[in-house]
Order: sequence, then structure tokens, then C-alpha cells
Amino acid sequence: MRSIDWNDESKTVIMIDQTLLPGEYKVIECKTLSTLCEAISSLRVRGAPALGAAGGFGIALAATLSSAASMDALVKDLEVAAATIKATRPTAVNLAWAVDRVMHAIQDAYNVDGIRDVTIEEAMRIADEDVIINKKLGEYGAKLLDDGDTVMTHCNAGKMACVDWGTALGVIRSAVLAGKEINVIACETRPLNQGGRITTWELMQDNIPVKLITDSMSGHVMRKGMVDKVIVGADRITEDVVFNKIGTYTHSVIAKEHEVPFYVAAPVSTFDFDGWEESVKIELRDPDELRFFGKEQLAPIDVDVYNPAFDATPMENISAIITENGIFEPPFLLDEVKM
Amino acid sequence: MRSIDWNDESKTVIMIDQTLLPGEYKVIECKTLSTLCEAISSLRVRGAPALGAAGGFGIALAATLSSAASMDALVKDLEVAAATIKATRPTAVNLAWAVDRVMHAIQDAYNVDGIRDVTIEEAMRIADEDVIINKKLGEYGAKLLDDGDTVMTHCNAGKMACVDWGTALGVIRSAVLAGKEINVIACETRPLNQGGRITTWELMQDNIPVKLITDSMSGHVMRKGMVDKVIVGADRITEDVVFNKIGTYTHSVIAKEHEVPFYVAAPVSTFDFDGWEESVKIELRDPDELRFFGKEQLAPIDVDVYNPAFDATPMENISAIITENGIFEPPFLLDEVKM
Repeated sequence: MRSIDWNDESKTVIMIDQTLLPGEYKVIECKTLSTLCEAISSLRVRGAPALGAAGGFGIALAATLSSAASMDALVKDLEVAAATIKATRPTAVNLAWAVDRVMHAIQDAYNVDGIRDVTIEEAMRIADEDVIINKKLGEYGAKLLDDGDTVMTHCNAGKMACVDWGTALGVIRSAVLAGKEINVIACETRPLNQGGRITTWELMQDNIPVKLITDSMSGHVMRKGMVDKVIVGADRITEDVVFNKIGTYTHSVIAKEHEVPFYVAAPVSTFDFDGWEESVKIELRDPDELRFFGKEQLAPIDVDVYNPAFDATPMENISAIITENGIFEPPFLLDEVKM
Repeated sequence: MRSIDWNDESKTVIMIDQTLLPGEYKVIECKTLSTLCEAISSLRVRGAPALGAAGGFGIALAATLSSAASMDALVKDLEVAAATIKATRPTAVNLAWAVDRVMHAIQDAYNVDGIRDVTIEEAMRIADEDVIINKKLGEYGAKLLDDGDTVMTHCNAGKMACVDWGTALGVIRSAVLAGKEINVIACETRPLNQGGRITTWELMQDNIPVKLITDSMSGHVMRKGMVDKVIVGADRITEDVVFNKIGTYTHSVIAKEHEVPFYVAAPVSTFDFDGWEESVKIELRDPDELRFFGKEQLAPIDVDVYNPAFDATPMENISAIITENGIFEPPFLLDEVKM
């Protein structure tokens, strides 16, 4: 199944609970808006595109549950729901964007039932579009991979971060679909270990060979000639840099040192050419992420910690950016990417 | 106190239990040889020089506990003890070396009490010599650090890996002792987190400011200009490379990219100029180190893992090697180092 979906029979939102992976695979059903909001805020669903789908389905769920008999009353209910959903993760741009998109779509409805139908249709469209974009991006990117390649990746830019298929992992899936044999090296991605927990799990589900390493081993494996290409996702692409999960920049320097191609796979929606590196503030996350893993203590409880969520990789370290509109080698103009 | 020491009143071996750090600081007393052997094999004491001291003190403990009334009987008891101690960690060169050194020293004794005294004296000498070497090395290295420097380090090349003072951390301690203000950035050092668990704890004990980061952040912090120098320890130095904890090579490439000096601090005993990189087999460790941390699951239990204990950093990435005989810039001849 997709990482998140609409169950049309029971009129509920279903999702794979990512907090339980890889120990347990559990599909949870959100029958109420509060269950869905809890799932978003506690990261049972995560990743920008997946959160977009969650936001859209959230409005559909609210519309289904509302007992409003008039259009005005229903719209009011949905406005409250929209604010509630957005508040679960206020900095998640895709979540708010998808909620607003569904709220905008209902303006075309003629009656109460029409509004309900439109919310479901528009939310489904958001999810479907994401899959279509990933598959297009995957097809372009697959051309960059050769049969027999070993590809290193960082964090999780896969199906579980999107609705399905994935960006970096989507490229790998498309190459495998095209009949190429691809081996993956997954960096565990401290401190939250999305690479170790989710990327490995996803690929093992698809029978794509994957080997887990610590982030610090990237130098060693590239020096030993064990890596043919690196592919990562992106959180935000400005004219000068790619923002992605902390650790990406380190891998890019190592790849440059060993002349290993370093690719970024990201949909066009990730590009923000109005911004520059200096205009983006990197989120500092909870120090306890480095002091504990679950119940295990990793460091003195009062140790000073520096825990940036992202880093910035300059364009000169990037061989190409793979999008649904094609492959772009820096330097390039945003107009070319947006077509 | 030292990481390991001889308690002359109770005639026992005392040590800081490193498996409990940083959650708990506990000094354990080994009153029997089996307690000491258990402490060695379960890594309550670890690090090459510290294991040397443990081996020496082990023979002293066996001599104290033996009820043998004749020299022959006592030597036989000690030979059994020597074999038992060496078997706890058969690949630890320093452990066997120290045991043999004490066993050799007893040849000069005239009677049973003399043997007992010699074992204690020689074991103490081994421990003392290690501290003297570290302090000499520290004094040389301290000259490379400037007041106000931020120094990044990896793993634990500190007091807890030695008897006292440390190698990489010894250089930092000596600089602080000389009145310089030094800030440390400690990489957590996956998968066993010696940096996060032990280096941070050691430095906090000494009130030396330390900030913990994930290993993958080294690129980001150096790009941001947050690091003035890198100092690491070494497990083995051949003519072409330095073998050290996995991740060291990655940091060396990042340091080179940002023109940050990259220093290795190691006693002369670490040099093995008969060997080359290709002649050394890198130990592959238990895959479960990447699948679990304590009781917490980090990855699918059946995921394929690559877990080399060490990596090799070529001399071209190293600015200088700091020893008790002075500072050496590659390329250099072993004769110069050995004086």
C-alpha cells in the first residue's frame, strides 16, 4: 500500500505507522480528525509530500465526519479543521499547501454533498500527482544509473517520505524496473536513523539489495571503490545550495574527492530560487536526540549539543539535479527547470 | 583517579567501570583474578595503554593472592595467571606485552616476597610510564594549539583509553594547563559512541568546554568555520597510512577541503613501519552494533551490515603526527620518530 491513503469504503485515512518501523509493520486507521492530527504531530506520517497528502485527506475526513446540513455550516467546520491540521506541524509547508488547495477546490461545489465529494477527489488528486511526479523523476534519473551500480544514499527519500515510489529511492526503483541490477548502501542518518530504520526496510520490502553503514563510513567505502554514485533527496533548493538532511554536505565532499557522481533527486516544487543560503535559517533540533535513543542514554544528560536538522551543499559539489522535468547540471536557470 | 590503578592498602586493582559511563560513575575493585578478567573481557577497561596496565596489575594481583611458599610454586601460579589474562582479549597486543614484561621482571627476584614486590613495582612502572609518555606528547602537541581554538576530535583518545591524561585529549589538556582556552567539538563516533559517551564525560569532568555532534556534522561545522584544528588518536601507523577508529578518514578529507589542520596524536609504540596499508586486515565487527543500541532497535534485524572497526587515512591528509619524541610532518622516516 501507499504510505498514506484514503479508504473509500470506511471513509477513513489509513497509513503505515512509521514510528514503529522497522520493528513492527502496522497500518493504522484514522477515523477522527484528532487521531489524524496526533499521527501527524507524533511523526507516524512524515516527509514533505506524504504530509501534503495527510493534509488533503484530513479535510476530506473532516467533511465526511461533519453533520452540517448547510453549505455555510460545512465550510465553517472545514475552516476549523484546516486550522487544527495546520497547527500540528506549523513549519511543514506542504501540509498547509495541501489543506489550502482542498479548501480552495470546494469553492466549485454546488451543495453539501458536492463539497464532501470535492474534498475527497482533490485530496486523492494531490496524492496521485505526487506519485506521477516521482515516477517521471524516477524515469529520468534511472538513465543515470548503469546496470551493476552500487548507489549510496542518505536519510529516507523514499516511498515513506512521499506517497509512493520516492525521489532518491524512486530513481533506484525505476532503474530496477528497467531491468538494471542496483545495490544500495544506506547511511544510517544520525540522529534519528531514518536511513537505518526506514530506507533499509523499504528496500528490503522490494527485494532491492541494501547494506547499512554508519554515516562516518562514507569516506572509507568511497576510498575502497565500493560506491559508483550517490543519490540524495532535498528539502529546499536555492540558487546557490541544496538544503537536505544533516550529513549530506559531508557526503558531497567525500564524493567530490573520489570523483563519484553526486545526484540530488527532487520535484520542481522543492526549488526556491527567490532564496539564498544566507536567507534560510537552519532549524536546530532537540539536544536530547543526541543524548538518548529511545530509552538508551548515549551521552551525559547535561552535555552541550549542536543539532542542526539540515546542511547546505553548494552547487559545485552536485553533478546533477533530477526532477520530473528532466535532469539539470549546475549552473542552470530556474526557468529551465520550471519549463 | 586514573582509569585503572593499584590499591596498595587492600592489594587490589581498582578501575572506573567504563561500561556504565556516562550514566553512572562507579569505581570497581577487583579482588580476584576472575573479577579482573571479567572486567577486561566485558570492556569495563578498554583502550590499548589502559589494557597494558590491566595486564601488569593482573600479574601483581595473582602474586598477592597466591599462597605459594616456594619461588617455583609462585612462578607456576603466575604462569597460569598470565595465560588466563592474555586469553581474555587475545588480539590486544598491549595486554600480552605488559603481562610478559612483568613476568620477565620477576627473574631478578631472590625470594617469594621479592617476586611479589617486583610484580607490583613493574606493573606500577608500566602505568607510570604511560602517563609520562602522554604528558610529553601533550606538551609537544599543545604548542600547535592557539588560545581560543576550537578542536574537533573523534572517538575517545583520552584518559579513559590510557591510564591518565590521554593522547588526543592529552594534547588538549596540556594546552589548557598551559593557560590556553580550548573548546572541543566531540563527534559521537558510531556505532559504539565512545565520543558521545566517554570523551564528553571526561572533558566535562575537567571543566573543558565540549559540544557533542553527530559524525555526519563534521562537514557542516567545518564549512561554517567552527573548527580550527582536528586531533585524533591512532591504533596503528604504517609508512603510508594511519589506522584509527572508523570515520577518521572521512573527517580528514573534510579537514583538507576546508584547510583545517589535521593532527594525529600517538605514542611511538603505535608506529609499525614494517607494515603497509595493504598488509593490515581491518577487523569487521558484529553487525548487531548497527542494528541495536542497548535494547533499542535501530534497523531491521536481518539487514545486511558493513561494520569495519577502523579506516586508513593516507599521510597526505595528515598535517602532523604528535609523539612523545616530538612533532613529525609527513613524509618522515621512522628513524626520526624513534630518535
